[in-house]
Amino acid sequence: MFKGIFAPVPTPFIDEEIAYGKLEENLARWGSTGLSGIVVLGSNGEQPYVDEDEKVELWAFARKHFPRDKMIIAGTGCESTRATIRLTKKAADAGAQAALIISPHYFKASMKDPALEQYYRDVADNSPIPVLLYNMPGNTGLNMTPPLVKRLCNHPNIRGIKDSSGNIVQISEILRDVPEDFAVFAGSASFLMPALVMGAKGGTLASANVAPDLCVKIYKLVNQGKYDEARTIQKSILKLNSLVTAKYGVAGLKAALDMIGYFGGLPRKPALPIGDREKEDIRATLNELGLV
Amino acid sequence: MFKGIFAPVPTPFIDEEIAYGKLEENLARWGSTGLSGIVVLGSNGEQPYVDEDEKVELWAFARKHFPRDKMIIAGTGCESTRATIRLTKKAADAGAQAALIISPHYFKASMKDPALEQYYRDVADNSPIPVLLYNMPGNTGLNMTPPLVKRLCNHPNIRGIKDSSGNIVQISEILRDVPEDFAVFAGSASFLMPALVMGAKGGTLASANVAPDLCVKIYKLVNQGKYDEARTIQKSILKLNSLVTAKYGVAGLKAALDMIGYFGGLPRKPALPIGDREKEDIRATLNELGLV
Amino acid sequence: MFKGIFAPVPTPFIDEEIAYGKLEENLARWGSTGLSGIVVLGSNGEQPYVDEDEKVELWAFARKHFPRDKMIIAGTGCESTRATIRLTKKAADAGAQAALIISPHYFKASMKDPALEQYYRDVADNSPIPVLLYNMPGNTGLNMTPPLVKRLCNHPNIRGIKDSSGNIVQISEILRDVPEDFAVFAGSASFLMPALVMGAKGGTLASANVAPDLCVKIYKLVNQGKYDEARTIQKSILKLNSLVTAKYGVAGLKAALDMIGYFGGLPRKPALPIGDREKEDIRATLNELGLV
Amino acid sequence: MFKGIFAPVPTPFIDEEIAYGKLEENLARWGSTGLSGIVVLGSNGEQPYVDEDEKVELWAFARKHFPRDKMIIAGTGCESTRATIRLTKKAADAGAQAALIISPHYFKASMKDPALEQYYRDVADNSPIPVLLYNMPGNTGLNMTPPLVKRLCNHPNIRGIKDSSGNIVQISEILRDVPEDFAVFAGSASFLMPALVMGAKGGTLASANVAPDLCVKIYKLVNQGKYDEARTIQKSILKLNSLVTAKYGVAGLKAALDMIGYFGGLPRKPALPIGDREKEDIRATLNELGLV
Repeated sequence: MFKGIFAPVPTPFIDEEIAYGKLEENLARWGSTGLSGIVVLGSNGEQPYVDEDEKVELWAFARKHFPRDKMIIAGTGCESTRATIRLTKKAADAGAQAALIISPHYFKASMKDPALEQYYRDVADNSPIPVLLYNMPGNTGLNMTPPLVKRLCNHPNIRGIKDSSGNIVQISEILRDVPEDFAVFAGSASFLMPALVMGAKGGTLASANVAPDLCVKIYKLVNQGKYDEARTIQKSILKLNSLVTAKYGVAGLKAALDMIGYFGGLPRKPALPIGDREKEDIRATLNELGLV
Repeated sequence: MFKGIFAPVPTPFIDEEIAYGKLEENLARWGSTGLSGIVVLGSNGEQPYVDEDEKVELWAFARKHFPRDKMIIAGTGCESTRATIRLTKKAADAGAQAALIISPHYFKASMKDPALEQYYRDVADNSPIPVLLYNMPGNTGLNMTPPLVKRLCNHPNIRGIKDSSGNIVQISEILRDVPEDFAVFAGSASFLMPALVMGAKGGTLASANVAPDLCVKIYKLVNQGKYDEARTIQKSILKLNSLVTAKYGVAGLKAALDMIGYFGGLPRKPALPIGDREKEDIRATLNELGLV
Repeated sequence: MFKGIFAPVPTPFIDEEIAYGKLEENLARWGSTGLSGIVVLGSNGEQPYVDEDEKVELWAFARKHFPRDKMIIAGTGCESTRATIRLTKKAADAGAQAALIISPHYFKASMKDPALEQYYRDVADNSPIPVLLYNMPGNTGLNMTPPLVKRLCNHPNIRGIKDSSGNIVQISEILRDVPEDFAVFAGSASFLMPALVMGAKGGTLASANVAPDLCVKIYKLVNQGKYDEARTIQKSILKLNSLVTAKYGVAGLKAALDMIGYFGGLPRKPALPIGDREKEDIRATLNELGLV
Repeated sequence: MFKGIFAPVPTPFIDEEIAYGKLEENLARWGSTGLSGIVVLGSNGEQPYVDEDEKVELWAFARKHFPRDKMIIAGTGCESTRATIRLTKKAADAGAQAALIISPHYFKASMKDPALEQYYRDVADNSPIPVLLYNMPGNTGLNMTPPLVKRLCNHPNIRGIKDSSGNIVQISEILRDVPEDFAVFAGSASFLMPALVMGAKGGTLASANVAPDLCVKIYKLVNQGKYDEARTIQKSILKLNSLVTAKYGVAGLKAALDMIGYFGGLPRKPALPIGDREKEDIRATLNELGLV
C-alpha cells in the first residue's frame, strides 16, 4: 500500500494567507508526475505555522484537487496525545488516507521510549486511518530508536515510518526488525538510493517537490536492479537536496519552486526569505540538473 | 519592575481536564509566599499541551485568583509570528502583565539570529504588554546568543530575559551588555546564586513552586551581601532542583507538589507519571530540606 | 591498489605487554582468509596506548609474519605534524605499504579545514608511502568534511579515506567529488553494503577481525550485482558489529576473538574488561552467525 | 595547599623547537606577579604536541627558573594508565610539586565512570606527588561527572580538580560533595568569580598568562567580600578570555603575549597562526583593559 515517492508539499502563502489558487495549480502539476502521493502539512508544509482550522481546510482542498488514485498523507502530529488524536480524526474526515505523525518532542528529557511507545499506541488505537511514524531529529532534537520502532511495527494501524535521520545504520536495523509489509521511507533524497538498496519502500522527499521525475527514476532504477544508472542520478541530486533542506530550508525550497514554474512564494514569519546569493546557488544547481 | 523570584506554575489536570478548583487553592498558597509573581503557561505549565482557548481562560482565572500586587506573566510564545502576536494580545486582555516568549525553534536551521531578532521585534512592536525573552535550549534545541540579546535589549517593549541555559558565562556576557534596567532572570534554581552574584534581577524557577521560601531566601541573602548563608542554601537546593527539572520533569514537579500539600496530579499525555522509586527519591530530598 | 576488505587488527597483550607469539598465530589465521590486508595500530590496535618504540616493532613484526601479497597499513597519526611525519617514516622503514592517518583533534576548535588541509599536505609531502585519510568522529569529536576531502584528493600521495562517520550522505558526497582511483573505504561493517553500492572500494572493519569471510562475501556479492544476497548478510552482521564497536569497544572485540579461537585477551588499562553478561551477549550473536 | 591563581603557561617555540631562553624570560615575569604557580604542559602548553623527553626537560627547566615559593604543576596525563604513571614519576623527579591529569578520552565510549575511577586510583596510588583531576570536555569530548568526583575526592593523593566545563551547576554540585580541603579550580577566567563565590579555591586560567594581576584581583576581592568590584573586573575580562581560549586558541594566546612584552611566538603545527584581523581583535581588547 505504501510505496514509491511522495512529495511533502509546501503550503503556499500570499501576504501570509494560504493561496489556494496557487496550491491548486501546483497540485495539478505534481499530480501529473510519477509521484505516488503527497504529504500535506509535513515539515515542508510549515505545519507549526498553520492553525488547526487552516489545516483541516488544506487537507480537504488538497484531496479535492489532487488525483484520486494518488495518496494524500496528512501531517497531524501535535505535542499532546489528545490534540493529535483530535487532529488525526479531522484529517481522516477531510479525506486524507493516512497520517504521518511526528514524535512529540518539546519535553525532550521526558519523551523516552516508553512515553513515545504509549503515545503512538494511543494515537493508532484512535485513528480512523493508518498511521506512519515520523522520525525527524533535525527538527525535534529527538531520535526514534530501532527498538522503539520494533515494538510499534506490529500494531495493526501503524504501517510504516518516515526516517529523516539520514542514519543508514539505523535504517538498516529498522529494516532488519520490521515485517515485510511495514513501509520504511527515506526522509530525504540524499540517502534515497542507499535506503532503497537496504529495503526501503520509497521516500518522502523535499526534493520530490522540485525534481519528482529524478526521484521517481532513482526508485524505479533500483527496483529494476540498474544500480549504476541509479547511482549517477543519486549523486547528481545531492547538492540540490542540501540546498532545499538543511542549507536554505523551506524558504529555499519555495524559491526553487518559483524558478521552475510552480508557485513557491515566501514562508510564514518568522522564517526569512533567502537572499540573492542563495537564489543564485539554487538556480545554478537547478540548471546543472536541467530543471531550469 | 521585574525582580525577585517567580514560580512557573504547573497546570493542574484531573482526567486530562484543567482542575480550576485545585488551581485556585494552589494560587492562594503561592500568593501567600514571598514570590514576586508567577508564570502561567511556561514550560512547567505544559504550554505545548494546552489549547489556545484553555490558555486564555487560564490566564484570566489566574489573574482573578492571585493577589493583585503580585505579577502574572503569561507564556505566549508560538512558532509563527502571527500566532504569537495574537496570543499575546489575548493574554494582555486576560490581565497578564507581561509575556514570556520562548524562541520559535521547530525549524532550527532557519532560526538564526536575524530571524529571531525580527521575530522578537515584530512581537514586541505589537504586544500591549512588556515582553520577556525566553531562552530554553534544553527544550528548544536552540540557544539565544549574547549578541542577539544585545541587539534586542534596547527595544522599549523588551524588558528582560529568562535564561535557562545554565551557561553562567553566557549569562555574564548578557549582563555585561544590557542596560541596568533590563532584567536578566535565572531560569533554574541550580544557578540562582551565581546568576544573582553576576547581576541577575531574580529567577523564574521550577523549584520556586515547591520551595518558594528557600528560593526567596537565596535572593534576599545575596542582596544583603550574606554570601556564606546564601551559598549553604544554594548547595542544599541543587538536588531537589535536578529532580523536579531535568531528571523527572513536570511529572516529578507535580509529584513533589502533591507531597507538600499542593495539588500536583499528573501531566497530560504523552508525559508519563513517575514511578514509586522516583517518588521516594523526591520525598527523601524534600525531607532533607524540611519541606515534608 | 586499495580495494577489498581490511581488518584493523587488535594488539594482543598479556599482563599489559605485547604478546608477539599470540599475534603471530592471529596473523597466520587472518592471512589465510579473503582479507586484502590489515591495519596495524588503528583504533582497534589501541594505538593511543602503545609507545612509539612498540609501534615500530609491531609493524616490522606484522610485515614479517603476514603474507607478502597482502597489504599492511600502519596507523601513524599523531597530534603534531612533526611526530606524524617521523612515525610515518618509521612505519615505511618497518615495511608498511601505506599509512592510515587519523585527523589531529585535541585542539578541536583550532582544527578547522585549513589546518587539517595543511596537516595532510605536509604529511603526504613527507611520507615515503601512500597516505590514507582517516575520519573517525566517534573518537576524535571532529568530522572531516567533503569539501576538505575534495581539496586533498588530488594530492599524488593521498590515495584514499577511511570514513567511520557512518554518514552515508557524506560518503556519497565524497564519492561524487573524488577521482575514480581515490579509494573510499567504509569504516564500519554496519554500513559496508550502502557504501559499496554508492561506489566505495572496500572497508576497514572491526568486524572483519571476527567475521572476515562474511565481510568479504558482502564485498564480492555487491561487486557481482547480487544485491539480495548481500543485503541478507549485511543485515545479519549489524548486531555483531555494534557489539564489537560502539557497545563494548575493543574489550568486546577481543572477547569475541577469544570465543572463536583467535587470541583476544584484555585491552591495556584504563580500558576495562567486559563482564559476563556482555560476553554472553557476544557469544549468542556469534552463535546466530554460525561463528562459534 | 592548592589555592589562588595559576597560569597554564604556553610552551614557546622558535622554528618548532623549544625556545628555552624565551621561556626563562617569561618565567621571570610570571614569577614576579601575584600568581600562586604555573601549570607546565597543560592544554595551553600544547602537551599533545610535545615529546616525552621534551616534557621532562621542560619541567626541570621551569622548576629551576621559577621562584621556589611558587608551585609548579605538571600536566602528565596520557591515554594509557602505564604511560601516565611513568610520566608522572618523571615529572616528580624533575621537581614538579603536583600533577594535573586530564581524563583519558580517545575511546570515549569506553571511558565511563568506572574506567575513569580506576584510572585515577591507579595513577594516584603510584604518583609520588599529589594528583589534580582535570576535566576538559571542550578538548576531550568527555565530561567528568560530580558522582565520579565524589568517589575520588577522598583518595589521600587526589587533592583537587580543575574543571574547565564552565558548567556552574556541575561545579556547585562538586563543591557540595567534596571535603573542605579538596581544591576545586575554575578552568577558565570566564567563570572565575561565580566559581569562587560557590567555594572554589582558585583558578587555572589561560587568561592568567596575559592578565595575571586582573585574575588575582578577582580572587582577592571575592575573598574580601568585595563583590561589586570583583564583578566589574569579571565582566571586563570576558572578551579577552574568549579570544585567547575558544575563539583563537593557543595561537591567540601566544599572539596576545607577544603584544604585551612576553614571548609568544607560534604554536607547533598543525595549529595555524592567526591572521591580522584576529590580531587586531586581540589588540583592541588588550587596549580596553589597559594591558597594551
